[in-house]
Order: sequence, then C-alpha cells, then structure tokens
Amino acid sequence: MDFRVEDITQEEIDRRLAVVEPLTDAVRDLVDAVIRSTVDDEALSAARGRIEEVTATLRTQQREGSFGTPFTPEFVGMPWGNAVVGARNALAPPLRIDQEAGGIAHCRMTLGAAYEGPGGCVHGGVAAMLLDQLCGEAAAVEGVPSFTGTLTVKYLHPLPLNAPLRGRAEVTRREGRKTFVGATLADADGVAVQAEAIMIAPRGFELPTE
Amino acid sequence: MDFRVEDITQEEIDRRLAVVEPLTDAVRDLVDAVIRSTVDDEALSAARGRIEEVTATLRTQQREGSFGTPFTPEFVGMPWGNAVVGARNALAPPLRIDQEAGGIAHCRMTLGAAYEGPGGCVHGGVAAMLLDQLCGEAAAVEGVPSFTGTLTVKYLHPLPLNAPLRGRAEVTRREGRKTFVGATLADADGVAVQAEAIMIAPRGFELPTE
Repeated sequence: MDFRVEDITQEEIDRRLAVVEPLTDAVRDLVDAVIRSTVDDEALSAARGRIEEVTATLRTQQREGSFGTPFTPEFVGMPWGNAVVGARNALAPPLRIDQEAGGIAHCRMTLGAAYEGPGGCVHGGVAAMLLDQLCGEAAAVEGVPSFTGTLTVKYLHPLPLNAPLRGRAEVTRREGRKTFVGATLADADGVAVQAEAIMIAPRGFELPTE
Repeated sequence: MDFRVEDITQEEIDRRLAVVEPLTDAVRDLVDAVIRSTVDDEALSAARGRIEEVTATLRTQQREGSFGTPFTPEFVGMPWGNAVVGARNALAPPLRIDQEAGGIAHCRMTLGAAYEGPGGCVHGGVAAMLLDQLCGEAAAVEGVPSFTGTLTVKYLHPLPLNAPLRGRAEVTRREGRKTFVGATLADADGVAVQAEAIMIAPRGFELPTE
C-alpha cells in the first residue's frame, strides 16, 4: 500500500478541491441522468460519443493505476480517489463524514437513483459500504487509517432513496491494535441498519514526525 | 417497493441493452479518467462544462425518482439501475454474475481506480457490497429476489486493484423464509474476504401467474 507524501499547503488543497469537486458533482449527475433518462436510442448513442470525447481530453495526461492516498507532511490525508469519500470519485455518495473527539463519526446524506437495490430503496451492499467507511473514520486516530477486520451488518428495514438519511459510528473499546466500533444508518422511521466492526491498525504504522 | 411489469420480448431487452451498455461503459471510463487525470485546471473545468451539456440532453425526458425493478410477464428481471449489477448504472463494477443450479453464484472481475480504499487496494466497503449482491443472487429462486437480513464479512488480506479477482457464493441451508449463504472474494493469493449472510424472502411475495 502506498502512502506518498505531497508537500502542499491547505490553501493549495482548497484550490484543487474547488476545481475537482464541481467536476465530480457533474459526473455524479451524469450517472444519475443515464439511469433515469428516457430519451430515444439515437440521443443515448450521441451522448455516448460526446462522453468518449471528454474522456479522451482528460486522458491526455494521467496517473498510472489509481489515485492512491497522498498525505501532506502535516499528515493531512487526501484520499481523493476513495470509493466512498473521494473528492474526485463520482462513485462516492454525495456526503461528508465529520469526526468528533472520542471516536465518533457521523454524516447526513440523500441517496439517489444510483444507489438502488430493491425498487425505490438503497442497496443493502451500499449500506454496508457506508457503514464500513463510517467505522473506519470513527476508529482513525490522528488521521491514521485503520483496516476492517470484521464487519457485521444487520438490516432492520429498507432505507428509502431520495430521503434524508443519517449515519453514525462510535468507538466502544480499544484493545491493542484492535478498535471495536458500533454504527447505524437511520431514516425518518429510526435506525434501519446496524453494524459492528473490529478495525485493525496497520502493523508498524507510525505517525510521521517532522 | 415497486415491482412493475413491462411486457417486452427478450429481443427487445437485448436491443435496449445493446444501446445502454456501451453508454454505461463510457460513463465508467469517464469516472476513472476524472480520478486519474493530471490535466490542468482549465482543462478540468472545460470537461465539466461539456459533461453538464450532455447531462442536460439526457434529462429532457426522464423517469421520476429511480429506475425501479421492472420484470417481464415471464418474470425476467431488468434491475438496470441496480448499484452493483445495473446495466445503466456506471457505479456498478464491470462484472456479470452468473448463477448455477443449486444456489451458486459467481463472477470474475478486475476493479480499477474507482474502487480504491487503501492506496492501490479495493475498498473494504466495496468488497462487502459485492459479497452482499453475490449472496442475494445465490439465494434467489426463480428470479425472486431476497433481502439481506444479516451480513458478516471477514477480511483476511487486501485485494489489489487492477488484478483479476473471483467472487463466489453458495447456499448452505434453507429454513422457511431464511436462506443461509457463504461467499468469498479471491485474488491470485487465494481467498481475501469471506462472508456469511442470512437472506430473507419477502413476505407474501408470490410469483406472478399469467
């Protein structure tokens, strides 16, 4: 796993995010439109042609493989390719996870057509994915990511699409490299999905010192 | 949950897929390019403008809410908006899950930059999402979907991005409305993630008769 260091200021981070976040939002909106559009085949094929042209312009200069997880020397993480919270990743649901002291992470979100499982409802696997990320962020200390050891998810009722949802995770216990976390996803009717996770801190991973 | 019936032939299904699958692939490719591109800010912003134009053309006619889960009268499912297997959903990983008699489902796939968690590795939440879908497809009988009751995922080693992966799920036991399923995701080094699921058949769900 790659933890490259990129020596940039918070101002430079903010400047880059101001460019890429609207681009990612535009792609997210395109993903939704492709799912819901009822235009005719000719219009769909024309859209494909135009999308391929845009992709070609972006690929004239690109990284090999994946975005990776760069950090600044101050250990500010920039996991912008991340599947759940990456600022450049249109697959990531439109949400921001906030962390609080004491091992707490929470978020609010509304999930649209792209997150569908059963008709009109959030995919159970998407719920599991969100809970995994929430548990990881609750368990993280000083920005050091931890890895999921075990994740157990219990589904109580389906979560609706296009409705306000809340996610929350809280560390219940730490024991050596293991951190135990409980998490929930809730809608207007209360908790819909519950999770318990055992997160593992990477072996030999140390906070960088300046 | 919505189970609308759409009376179309297999030929019409195939014709529609031949148009939407290449469009979805083009959007998937765009998602990847946005993550990995290193072109300058001006080029990124120009790409955003062009994407917004394409989205506007697609939104001139569209469904409300989400795609839903239509079926033909012969009970062929068309969950084309599905977050993991939807033919119109660019978030869905590039894979096809095959089912075998006896409650077995399997797939092969290579996951790119859009599925990243730890640098260079598949996001643990993405692995959970894939295992949830695999368990659901193994448990499905005659196309009738089942819902996840409990999903337990155990992570043994990280799965690499951009490498061939295999997924497999198998029903171990059925008991009333409950189906017990075991599943794995593996790379060249063997099983990396294991799951056990209890899937629940929807109450009162009956196969439609003509």
